Amino acid sequence: MLKAYLLIVGSELLLPGKADTHSSYLRDRLFELGIPLQGYCVAGDDENALIAQLEVASRSASLVILTGGLGPTEDDVTRKAVARFLRKSLRYDERVREQLEQFFAERQRQMPDNNLRQALVPVGSRVLPNRVGTAPGLHLEERGCHYLLLPGPPKELEPMFAEQVAPWLAQKFGQRPIRQRFFRLTGIPESAADQIASPIYRRYPEVNTTILSKPGDIEFILTALAEIGAPSGSLDRLAGELEAALVDYIYSTDNVPMEEVIGRLLLERRASLSVAESCTGGLLAKRLTDVPGSSAWFKGGVVCYSNELKAKLVGVPPEIVEKYGAVSSNVAITLAAGIRHKTGTDLAVGITGIAGPGGATPEKPVGLVYIGLALGEKITVKKFQFYGDRERVRFQATQMAMEIIRRALLAKTEPEGSK
Amino acid sequence: MLKAYLLIVGSELLLPGKADTHSSYLRDRLFELGIPLQGYCVAGDDENALIAQLEVASRSASLVILTGGLGPTEDDVTRKAVARFLRKSLRYDERVREQLEQFFAERQRQMPDNNLRQALVPVGSRVLPNRVGTAPGLHLEERGCHYLLLPGPPKELEPMFAEQVAPWLAQKFGQRPIRQRFFRLTGIPESAADQIASPIYRRYPEVNTTILSKPGDIEFILTALAEIGAPSGSLDRLAGELEAALVDYIYSTDNVPMEEVIGRLLLERRASLSVAESCTGGLLAKRLTDVPGSSAWFKGGVVCYSNELKAKLVGVPPEIVEKYGAVSSNVAITLAAGIRHKTGTDLAVGITGIAGPGGATPEKPVGLVYIGLALGEKITVKKFQFYGDRERVRFQATQMAMEIIRRALLAKTEPEGSK
Repeated sequence: MLKAYLLIVGSELLLPGKADTHSSYLRDRLFELGIPLQGYCVAGDDENALIAQLEVASRSASLVILTGGLGPTEDDVTRKAVARFLRKSLRYDERVREQLEQFFAERQRQMPDNNLRQALVPVGSRVLPNRVGTAPGLHLEERGCHYLLLPGPPKELEPMFAEQVAPWLAQKFGQRPIRQRFFRLTGIPESAADQIASPIYRRYPEVNTTILSKPGDIEFILTALAEIGAPSGSLDRLAGELEAALVDYIYSTDNVPMEEVIGRLLLERRASLSVAESCTGGLLAKRLTDVPGSSAWFKGGVVCYSNELKAKLVGVPPEIVEKYGAVSSNVAITLAAGIRHKTGTDLAVGITGIAGPGGATPEKPVGLVYIGLALGEKITVKKFQFYGDRERVRFQATQMAMEIIRRALLAKTEPEGSK
Repeated sequence: MLKAYLLIVGSELLLPGKADTHSSYLRDRLFELGIPLQGYCVAGDDENALIAQLEVASRSASLVILTGGLGPTEDDVTRKAVARFLRKSLRYDERVREQLEQFFAERQRQMPDNNLRQALVPVGSRVLPNRVGTAPGLHLEERGCHYLLLPGPPKELEPMFAEQVAPWLAQKFGQRPIRQRFFRLTGIPESAADQIASPIYRRYPEVNTTILSKPGDIEFILTALAEIGAPSGSLDRLAGELEAALVDYIYSTDNVPMEEVIGRLLLERRASLSVAESCTGGLLAKRLTDVPGSSAWFKGGVVCYSNELKAKLVGVPPEIVEKYGAVSSNVAITLAAGIRHKTGTDLAVGITGIAGPGGATPEKPVGLVYIGLALGEKITVKKFQFYGDRERVRFQATQMAMEIIRRALLAKTEPEGSK
């Protein structure tokens, strides 16, 4: 069975700043093709380091993909390292030279002499043209192992992989596709979710269960690895058991984020939504409008960071703020009712809380958030205590606001707040 | 000179979903300690794969850091692989066993038998206690090479590294610190910025210049590598030349994001800001309120996604929308003036545009954005054509809105818009 190994080349990836995005791009594409990844390595522009890694890679995989180091400068050593490792000489490729000259001519630029280096290819290479940049891709086969040398810039790598490499891999090595199922949860801590889920998924060792989690959002990814040879029913049986056990917290079974789930529900019901945000400062509106076409159900709203604007823009009476404080259930209620009144939408949400790091008092700690919901004339409010830094508190507050909307639209019981 | 190599262990990192965050965390921390990273590898929970990588690692570095695979299950093979590679036997460590028992006792839980495995350590190991989880860290030295085995979960890895590993590395191998300089730019495409910058930074090969870029935000990271032995003045000379050449586009020389730059300027001038957003849907307010303490200068605003709300919440006359269209300079002007009038702030911004993918016409393509600025009674408006998907258009629009505010506060000329 074909396995892949990645060699990501680039000294800049070993310094702060630049993150390696190649490995996850290629990993996910290979996965879709049913080709498991054996491992990957990030190495500097160093011929000997590459050769050491090529030895490991060629022993453990029969598809070795290298990215980067195909440029025109002396630092670009990938072609040389592969040639030395495979004991092949480098020769000038006339077709590559022509393509390079054409590339520069089309852009009305003189080709620097340096770029000629890019026409030096190991003997026996198949050339993959690069329609976006100057570095051509290369393919070599040696003792049953395929080597693919692909350009480093994602803008060149990704079209070359999608247009030339993926179709070739699919045709030549088409393997049993890998199947996946997804669940997304909110309103439960990861440890509590895992306590419920682990006795179930442990009974299915033939399915890989990955849990991705951040406060307010947990994702279960179930993967039936062709490699492990999961019986075809295992994945669906595990998914069914997990869904039954976690049903109270699952907001999506098809891997769409909360804002899309809300959007679909509102669209189905032809219902409109507006928001009045204090501590979340626009994050809820931003997340809702991340969804293309959200104008069909999201009308807009108000960010009222100051008490003055709570009064001016939403009509929250200053006496209420004075009597109960800006972070209070009464203010959340008047925000929700006020913005619904101003905008005339079917639903409206009001959020007020303390995102931190400043603004907390002994009675009102960082993470205290009130969320009000106006559904027609009916108004409800819930108190929550979230944990984490400013970003986490804000994310959890918007996630919970959308979960409240979701449950209201489905006429489910409300999520549990804090006392 | 000490060099480091990382071995990130975990089969889940080779499947879609989970991203490896360990390598960048450790890379950045080692960098701060002046320890260059030679390379890193991500491997599955596979003893032979680990041993092959340990061979490469121990040949090229004298500090090998492994993360993950220290858990209580059979899949956790890191301890075993290191012991086999170094030809050491595993023995039960009484102190680790006590720590494990204490860990569970404190949490009023029975210790599963599995966890006893975690007390099996290679002979000669120094144990690093884990105050957050069950897996202790381990340190071994063999023929001048140091091996550190650290737990995989970031919540356990990061405190253990910060509290126990970093101080030890600093004391034992304290190397010349690596110095960096940063510039952040907007309002210029990456290729154009590089065309100006590359003739300059190419004259300083002893300084590493990394350019990180997304539409609307370019970051230059200049690094004087101790390893390369940059003369102490090189970094500052290069920084000075780049700053002079790119001064029109640099919004930050100390690596803070645009929203913080704006916040500082508004705070210094005791000026207040409000916003009225259409196509950016709350993203501008969200970015401004990402800054802790932003309530001192950001008062709030309105997200008016529908034309109705443009009228109701900001007072944009429906005739203007009807005559010029919702995406027009007149609407951007009335949004800015209207929200400033409603909120009474010193400055106000109005944004209207087409974020895509829907909503475009031949005259008004995706990416067309008008940004209005009200600075006291003075109102200006600029037209922009941004490129990219919904997320990119929205990011660029908010970035440009803040750049317009920045220039207005510094009384600089406005950024160039499109015709």
